[in-house]
Amino acid sequence: MGRTSDAKERLIGAAMELFYTRSYADVGVQELCKHAGVKKGSFYHFFETKQDLALAFLDHWWTYLRETRWEAAFSVDLTPLERISRFFESVYEQNCEFHDKYKQVCGCPFGNMAVELSPHEPIVRHKIDRIFDDVIGRLQVTLDEAVEAGNLAPMDTRETALALWAYCEGILVMAKARQDLDMLKRLGQRAVRFLQVSRRTVA
Amino acid sequence: MGRTSDAKERLIGAAMELFYTRSYADVGVQELCKHAGVKKGSFYHFFETKQDLALAFLDHWWTYLRETRWEAAFSVDLTPLERISRFFESVYEQNCEFHDKYKQVCGCPFGNMAVELSPHEPIVRHKIDRIFDDVIGRLQVTLDEAVEAGNLAPMDTRETALALWAYCEGILVMAKARQDLDMLKRLGQRAVRFLQVSRRTVA
Repeated sequence: MGRTSDAKERLIGAAMELFYTRSYADVGVQELCKHAGVKKGSFYHFFETKQDLALAFLDHWWTYLRETRWEAAFSVDLTPLERISRFFESVYEQNCEFHDKYKQVCGCPFGNMAVELSPHEPIVRHKIDRIFDDVIGRLQVTLDEAVEAGNLAPMDTRETALALWAYCEGILVMAKARQDLDMLKRLGQRAVRFLQVSRRTVA
Repeated sequence: MGRTSDAKERLIGAAMELFYTRSYADVGVQELCKHAGVKKGSFYHFFETKQDLALAFLDHWWTYLRETRWEAAFSVDLTPLERISRFFESVYEQNCEFHDKYKQVCGCPFGNMAVELSPHEPIVRHKIDRIFDDVIGRLQVTLDEAVEAGNLAPMDTRETALALWAYCEGILVMAKARQDLDMLKRLGQRAVRFLQVSRRTVA
């Protein structure tokens, strides 16, 4: 019984490694089972399809990042602008951790899957939408606080949060395209500088 | 004989449609041949592997975008900031054209492939590097001119060009993730506003 519940976690772990370091289409159920050390029958005990496993993988990483990186980055102990800065640092640090483990710059587990599947897999798209809404919402609340505290000029915080998250996805694409972690760090620091420029405009 | 040279173009056309609307891993040589109406023997006459076709597809789109969209956007008839604005508009317009054809928001043909293949296909990665260097170089020259003309504050134009291109890739990821062309338009307009903010700082 312990083995059975362990099998589900191992399959999600295999999905993380194989989907994330290669792609969803490139990896079949057979290879996922082999990598997880789980029989095919066990796979179908937990997941109806490969897509179900992809949804579980997205949920797993959403929970993980929310409970670790995002909670720490959006801590009330930091000023609003420090939180944004910390968020971009945490994106870099998480990619460093993945790099140590998988020996490649992997980018964003959610963005990668959106690029591959969003147009033709609406269930996956809606899951990623909710994850993106979570991050964009946190960025927006932070920008609202920064505006309220007079750290930033009044702005459409919803659109700016969307633009910030797009920028984050973009620097992850660039770092993955170039296989360059240092670029991810440098371009992440620039996000906060963009916002600081608009602060200087009101000063 | 006419048929034979036509076959190569039809294979590149099939690669455009199938790689771009789905993914590289999701489409095999057999399906590419069927879609192009070309026999497998013909495929291997022109391309040693599926990867060779991917490189030809990247070259084809690089040439197309350079000769049409990019030449027009980076025209010397426009002011430097108008060129950047025009470039982001052209990214939106090109995606509208793809949307009419393929009924989906497809994102960036280069960025998509970078996300899928860059870590483990160095030949593809180097091709995409050269394409990215081309665009980033055009953006940098434009920023240099804008700084020289006093339209923008002095800055590290190389890093800003890199950040602008990352932002462009990011809004393409977002638009694809959400299947939302209007978002691509709105976030593209914001790129120029970011730069205009820094112009106001010097004014």
